[in-house]
Amino acid sequence: MSEVMTLALRANEAATSLGITSTEQRNRALLAMAHALMQNQDEIVAANAKDMDAARAKGIAPALLDRLELNPARLKSMSEALKALSLLSDPIGEMLEGHTLPNGIQLSKIRVPLGVVAMIYEARPNVTADAAGLCMKTGNAVILRGGSLAVNSNLELTRVLANAATRSGMPDGCIQSIESTEREAAEELMGLHGYIDVLIPRGGAGLIKSVVENAKVPVIETGVGNCHVYIHKGADPEMARRIVVNAKVQRPGVCNAAESLLVDEDIYETVLPPILKELEENSVTIHADDATRSLGAVMRIEAATEEDWATEYLALEISVKVVSGIDEAIVHINKYGSNHSEAIVTDDYSASRRFLSEIDSSAVYVNASTRFSDGGEFGMGAEIGISTQKLHARGPMGLEALTSTKFILRGSGQIRE
Amino acid sequence: MSEVMTLALRANEAATSLGITSTEQRNRALLAMAHALMQNQDEIVAANAKDMDAARAKGIAPALLDRLELNPARLKSMSEALKALSLLSDPIGEMLEGHTLPNGIQLSKIRVPLGVVAMIYEARPNVTADAAGLCMKTGNAVILRGGSLAVNSNLELTRVLANAATRSGMPDGCIQSIESTEREAAEELMGLHGYIDVLIPRGGAGLIKSVVENAKVPVIETGVGNCHVYIHKGADPEMARRIVVNAKVQRPGVCNAAESLLVDEDIYETVLPPILKELEENSVTIHADDATRSLGAVMRIEAATEEDWATEYLALEISVKVVSGIDEAIVHINKYGSNHSEAIVTDDYSASRRFLSEIDSSAVYVNASTRFSDGGEFGMGAEIGISTQKLHARGPMGLEALTSTKFILRGSGQIRE
Repeated sequence: MSEVMTLALRANEAATSLGITSTEQRNRALLAMAHALMQNQDEIVAANAKDMDAARAKGIAPALLDRLELNPARLKSMSEALKALSLLSDPIGEMLEGHTLPNGIQLSKIRVPLGVVAMIYEARPNVTADAAGLCMKTGNAVILRGGSLAVNSNLELTRVLANAATRSGMPDGCIQSIESTEREAAEELMGLHGYIDVLIPRGGAGLIKSVVENAKVPVIETGVGNCHVYIHKGADPEMARRIVVNAKVQRPGVCNAAESLLVDEDIYETVLPPILKELEENSVTIHADDATRSLGAVMRIEAATEEDWATEYLALEISVKVVSGIDEAIVHINKYGSNHSEAIVTDDYSASRRFLSEIDSSAVYVNASTRFSDGGEFGMGAEIGISTQKLHARGPMGLEALTSTKFILRGSGQIRE
Repeated sequence: MSEVMTLALRANEAATSLGITSTEQRNRALLAMAHALMQNQDEIVAANAKDMDAARAKGIAPALLDRLELNPARLKSMSEALKALSLLSDPIGEMLEGHTLPNGIQLSKIRVPLGVVAMIYEARPNVTADAAGLCMKTGNAVILRGGSLAVNSNLELTRVLANAATRSGMPDGCIQSIESTEREAAEELMGLHGYIDVLIPRGGAGLIKSVVENAKVPVIETGVGNCHVYIHKGADPEMARRIVVNAKVQRPGVCNAAESLLVDEDIYETVLPPILKELEENSVTIHADDATRSLGAVMRIEAATEEDWATEYLALEISVKVVSGIDEAIVHINKYGSNHSEAIVTDDYSASRRFLSEIDSSAVYVNASTRFSDGGEFGMGAEIGISTQKLHARGPMGLEALTSTKFILRGSGQIRE
């Protein structure tokens, strides 16, 4: 039997036992896992050093090396995150609805674990602890497949976390990583229909596309954010400037950063120049339409192409377009956007109401930065990722996204006539 | 451009407008659709007659011919079902949660349509009206692909329903059927990632398997039910007999019918004989283990094979096994079952509690027939189908299964620090 199938069978067995553990037992396991990360930091850092050496030898870029690195400070923060999870309230067992049927059967719908969760991600070993913790909290068995560059780090983290979990009474197989770094192993995982209840890819567009194309198991798609800020003619210009700059510049490499700016033609000549100047001061490359370029507000503006409107730069770049009004803005965003997060800046009540209603995105803002699209900011306590699909979960996902439901029916001998 | 792609683009455009229609507008459209079915019954029955003639010429089995047939009485009941939908409360716009973030942003989570729903089904033209109605109720555009045997019926039904919907103000493209009966058209539909928000297959195991294997769009799997009744030693024998016979015999061809019976060894010698006799009187073929066979209670019992434990007969057949107690029963059900609906018959409180907690199925019963697993019986008003997956929806699905959510954030200039 293949490694992946062996892990999948073990995970399914573990899921059955995990599903009936108590909140207290799972929280104790999380604390044991947090403790184990600190107790075993030398072994983990040593395993990580092997990955770092190999990555350096391959000439991996500094930004990727930084994501790959584990050090005592990072392990401490991973450990604290596990402790924080133990303090969150438990979604499992929540009764979502209940009523008595006309025939006397008492029906209730309760929240249960999904079962077996699989995650495929890139060379960020912190995701290993994060995913293991989220799945332990929600009573799911987890099968992890991290990037090949981080394989030594991931296997050591998995060993440490799984041992801590089983020592505190959790079943064997509740936390597992795939050892094989072959592409075939990931493909086998994606195809295990009936053994994996959900597969969540975390990473770049290429990884996510590959999972969507190949998976036969249910998937939650995460990631792409071509987010817009639209400055309506009723906007306060100073508020507009602050929101646009924040949404673009504060952390340009993440999915909730703004990638495109739309401005009403009634006001663009006065509102845009200070914004373009501040973007330029922040080293943002601007791709704009003719109207914006003819303002001559800044030294250099590229001519925007059709492709720019649809591009998620994930960098200090932005596309800028003047629109005739809210109708054009809404059509443009629904056409070119990725249904992630969009903001309107306006003090016009009707415009705000239309934008909130007609923009088809997971998070729609009035007078606030798109950068707030985040489980932590939304008050979820923990974030699994940001779903860009509409099925099961949409937008920032909290613990509930790792749960399913079950109908419980208590009768007294009822049969169907 | 292919037919399927043309329909998909039109559906996406329609979905944008549909998403902002009011409850009143959609309910008016449902009533117009109900009315149109009655007004156009001659044309619909004539189109159906072509399908019936072609099917008869092909030598299609009587049961399938019966499912294919449309007559005034059936159209009347389809029309009444659309009217009944208009009376249900609207899930769209429901506010699911809301709170004010520490920075003053007011966050709310509201229920919205999924967008574009696709359904692939077999030669049952009633599904066409049913699916069109459910999607209209929930503000979704729908693309239908019925079985090739029903193509004339489906196209005529679609024409009538879509015309009624657009005449009452709904956008073009809200209800569409694929004309092509080629397999390639269905495959293209399954591959339209980014254009279809969910694909729901309704039909036999082969159809569902093909969709799960080939789809790149999100799928809700429905269908297979290898349901169990477990008679615990604490059962009332008479209640056990009534529940087993009802669950097996009342309608054997549906997914919530029982396919397997487990009985505790402490009581099987007295409890089983009258049940086996009544099953035999109802022409049920029995596949049993040695213990059951050696009872000699009925004339003929087949020896059960390993395959029998995993089989959904969908017919007057049942597998029977004597188990050592609740531990073996739970392990057996979780191993061989399809996680659909299972029942325990017992008057033992602890056994009922364990069964409800440890059986991993979408509906778990104490002292009632599995035949109640149905949206109507559960009080949902309408049923989309019964989901056998854990993602998005599990068990009988009501209107909510055709919805997604959206975060709305109202700020006053907040930016992220």
